[in-house]
Amino acid sequence: MFRNNLRIALAQINPITGHLSYNRDKIISFIKEAEKNKADIVVFPELALTGYPPEDLLLKKHFIDDSLKELNYICQKVNDIIVYIGTVARQRRWVINNVAAVLQQQQVRAIYRKIELPNYGIFDEKRYFSPGRKFLIVDIDGMRLGTSICGDIWIKKGFVIEKQAQLGARLNINLSASPYYANKIQQRIDLLKEQASRFDTYISYSNLVGGQDEIVFDGGSMVISPKGKIIAAAKQFEEDLLIVDLPREHLKAKIPTAQANYYHVPLELNKKGRSFNKGRIEKFYRKEEEIYQALLLGTRDYIYKTKFQKTVVGLSGGIDSALTATIATDVLGKENVSAVFMPSRYTSTVSREDAYQLASNLGIKITEVSIENIFQKYLQTMRKIWGDVPFDKTEENLQARIRANILMALSNKEDWLVLAPGNKSEIAVGYTTIYGDLVGGFGILKDVYKTLVYKLASFRNKQAGWKIIPERIIKKTPSAELRANQKDTDFLPTYSVLDTILQEYIEKDNSLYRIVENSGLDVKTIMRVIQLVDNNEFKRRQAPPGIRITPKSFGKDRRLPIVDGYRIDFYVQPCEFD
Amino acid sequence: MFRNNLRIALAQINPITGHLSYNRDKIISFIKEAEKNKADIVVFPELALTGYPPEDLLLKKHFIDDSLKELNYICQKVNDIIVYIGTVARQRRWVINNVAAVLQQQQVRAIYRKIELPNYGIFDEKRYFSPGRKFLIVDIDGMRLGTSICGDIWIKKGFVIEKQAQLGARLNINLSASPYYANKIQQRIDLLKEQASRFDTYISYSNLVGGQDEIVFDGGSMVISPKGKIIAAAKQFEEDLLIVDLPREHLKAKIPTAQANYYHVPLELNKKGRSFNKGRIEKFYRKEEEIYQALLLGTRDYIYKTKFQKTVVGLSGGIDSALTATIATDVLGKENVSAVFMPSRYTSTVSREDAYQLASNLGIKITEVSIENIFQKYLQTMRKIWGDVPFDKTEENLQARIRANILMALSNKEDWLVLAPGNKSEIAVGYTTIYGDLVGGFGILKDVYKTLVYKLASFRNKQAGWKIIPERIIKKTPSAELRANQKDTDFLPTYSVLDTILQEYIEKDNSLYRIVENSGLDVKTIMRVIQLVDNNEFKRRQAPPGIRITPKSFGKDRRLPIVDGYRIDFYVQPCEFD
Repeated sequence: MFRNNLRIALAQINPITGHLSYNRDKIISFIKEAEKNKADIVVFPELALTGYPPEDLLLKKHFIDDSLKELNYICQKVNDIIVYIGTVARQRRWVINNVAAVLQQQQVRAIYRKIELPNYGIFDEKRYFSPGRKFLIVDIDGMRLGTSICGDIWIKKGFVIEKQAQLGARLNINLSASPYYANKIQQRIDLLKEQASRFDTYISYSNLVGGQDEIVFDGGSMVISPKGKIIAAAKQFEEDLLIVDLPREHLKAKIPTAQANYYHVPLELNKKGRSFNKGRIEKFYRKEEEIYQALLLGTRDYIYKTKFQKTVVGLSGGIDSALTATIATDVLGKENVSAVFMPSRYTSTVSREDAYQLASNLGIKITEVSIENIFQKYLQTMRKIWGDVPFDKTEENLQARIRANILMALSNKEDWLVLAPGNKSEIAVGYTTIYGDLVGGFGILKDVYKTLVYKLASFRNKQAGWKIIPERIIKKTPSAELRANQKDTDFLPTYSVLDTILQEYIEKDNSLYRIVENSGLDVKTIMRVIQLVDNNEFKRRQAPPGIRITPKSFGKDRRLPIVDGYRIDFYVQPCEFD
Repeated sequence: MFRNNLRIALAQINPITGHLSYNRDKIISFIKEAEKNKADIVVFPELALTGYPPEDLLLKKHFIDDSLKELNYICQKVNDIIVYIGTVARQRRWVINNVAAVLQQQQVRAIYRKIELPNYGIFDEKRYFSPGRKFLIVDIDGMRLGTSICGDIWIKKGFVIEKQAQLGARLNINLSASPYYANKIQQRIDLLKEQASRFDTYISYSNLVGGQDEIVFDGGSMVISPKGKIIAAAKQFEEDLLIVDLPREHLKAKIPTAQANYYHVPLELNKKGRSFNKGRIEKFYRKEEEIYQALLLGTRDYIYKTKFQKTVVGLSGGIDSALTATIATDVLGKENVSAVFMPSRYTSTVSREDAYQLASNLGIKITEVSIENIFQKYLQTMRKIWGDVPFDKTEENLQARIRANILMALSNKEDWLVLAPGNKSEIAVGYTTIYGDLVGGFGILKDVYKTLVYKLASFRNKQAGWKIIPERIIKKTPSAELRANQKDTDFLPTYSVLDTILQEYIEKDNSLYRIVENSGLDVKTIMRVIQLVDNNEFKRRQAPPGIRITPKSFGKDRRLPIVDGYRIDFYVQPCEFD
């Protein structure tokens, strides 16, 4: 039977980093599924077998050995279908590469070694991998395919894609582990469209999906035509197997127009009859919904992959803990989220009502534990040391730390993961008590600015069709309630001003002078915010991990010294050191 | 007057990372001092102007601008003397290099760009810098000098030194920021001797000194002759200006024996008369004394450079807090260290006596705060939630966290830095309470194995000539005293067994099977230790910074995921996930 299409399957999987046997089994089941769908080729994401990023597991010789063993195991299961798998391979004992292994008929038929290794932002690939030096061209019954891995198509203006197009390739098989931040999918689409049309090639883009510590991979694998059109697209934020047929005549090898150093591997197809599959195009999420999905996936995977099942949230009646509890409930179900309300003398009636209302809306159990007696006991004890001293941040922090101790006691006794409610704005300026409200195993909102916290809460209510997060929580003046009549704005500018400055200083790395210029805001306000950000690096170092949704989170993205003499209070005022 | 020597000054300075004006002034004062000593050349360490490592400060455009301004400022102060300074320079807006700038007569006469950029262990240089491509040869009145920066002489079997020797250089000016770990100085000496004799060249090695977050630079700058002899050596662990004359006839340019891509810069000397300075050779520290010095310097610099003056230590009567308090007192003086003794029902009389004896020996103030009443209050409060449940780790952790809250209250009220007492062994296996004894701004013993803690305590007593750390503290059975009759060995193997396994697993990255082979220890014990190390990554992520004294500390050296399916309990037993 005449076959005028090449059928490609994009296997968008969610591996567990380091869990080689789990990942192997998942890969094998996706291969089987692709076979069932009569695919000619199935493509897995970058480092699909090891998970991404394996970090210093890559420095363990036995980890590389074990990865190679599992690859071999998978290989034994592969017959006619051509399988592209992202994994590690060794050149010499301590020289390893980030590779695409091409398997067929129980054999590793080819290895492509990633050429462009990213070493910025969250990426440390040059710490582990040696760059490849050769392209890989695979010919299949007259069709010609190039190969690339993630960063290869992101830098040097298409160098890797370009060269392979010049070598006559018509389809580039890309294996990616491209981390999410808000609207990243649009950047990817723009990039892929540009590369595809510029070099007159199809691009098949298989992306990873799932949460790994702070990083979320959003999937959204796709196939782009040489005209820059999305001809098939997989789901975002979940596993998927995307199948699409490409016309053979469009993939026929061109005559090379340039020379390059490359491996050339001929493979053959099994001639199976089947009908045409034009592929499906899933809709990508946008704006708040996209971010919300990322938070759901990041939370789900962190909790399950660390083998927790249940969580606990301290509900204060405020927006951060409310949104945290809502997301946790959406992910885990109401039976797996416990709320604790821990009032002190400074807690308002409104806060209690709102916390209870939220818990009731979510259907989660809420327990009340007053911290008042314990707080009294601390004050008595400390008064013996320091006598009658004025109330200051010490007493505020004491309350937050009593609450932390109660949450941790529940965590220890019940095996619940404590979710820290902190948002990016307050973690940035240190408006948080270290070992107090900063306590937790995971911080869902760690990379979410306060202004976005409000938007997400409103989005969730709109999605629900009712005020699942009570309107009053969204509307009321933010307060830590650690002293009488406290408001966040006693200490901070309004959140809209604060977040503007923070984005300039953190995401854009701009100087004081540039921020004044860009924002038109008051110099003193900007200076004070910068000062707070600089001086609170020590708190962030001891903060729990949380989900990255911006291009610069407080994780591996932003590596600043704690001892930092470039702080604004050093360089604006003279320094008294030494 | 005839000059038959070249006088070189090695300026071993302790900069504050990022504090450009402070570093600039220090550099200028060392230049003046070198001039006073009639030096022809003064050589500063790698990145002396910015401090090492500046990390993501290097991603701020204004930081690079400011560094260039300060370099220019220094330049204006330079007359006859030739100055080599380690700093950053720009090639294009986003292309920066780690450079040696050569200054004379108010001008930047040459720039050498570091070729070999380390990107392993604690190093991330490829994140920031582009590698240089050209060597730098400086000719001075017939003498020929090569240039190298740190990593240049550590890798590729002397490539950079070799090529410059082949170009006729007789003296290699090396600027380094070589971080300390125990006995590193001997590795450096071996390396320098080998390189110098192999390529028949003098090497002048200017190293940084001082603490920067977790890293300590130990100085020990030196000059090595082509015969592999140390002809001058600066002090370890303090600032120094080392001056030595080298015979001119030995530095006369050789005829090049190879070609290479290089900058060739001719400079001249001012002909000043002076007598011969053969240089001094300071003695390097060894063994426990060396490590103790590293801990002193690391502690001193962290505290002063973060602008703290006073510290507080919770004394338990145990060895870790005792050594921590002793080091703090050695560094800061007794008036700047406060001890707090916080007994519970489980605290023994012996512990109280020992804590008080130590405080008295050190001359530091000790305050007693019983946690009993507060502990009772927590138990009452929690009993309302969970009723009568058996005592477990929850109640143990509660006590540790009450102590943490008291220490933090003192920290907040008095502006004291809390010193965390944890050692490497217990942090490795998670035998520590997160938000409890793991609390603190800095952990002096974070990278010190328990067996070494004992050795350092004994060393300190020997050095003092009396039992400054009471003998009973060193001799008694270790216990956390969080329940009745508790001993560390209820939970852990003996520390000598534990530390053997930890070194195999952490420093050497060996597999279970290899550790069994190497150590001859019981498989089950080894497995249990590995399991504990793996499962406690989350605690280490929220641990305070501390001083690195081994080649692999729990800081930037060891980057493992928290979600890690390669954990021994995943790969030995089947995994239940999903």
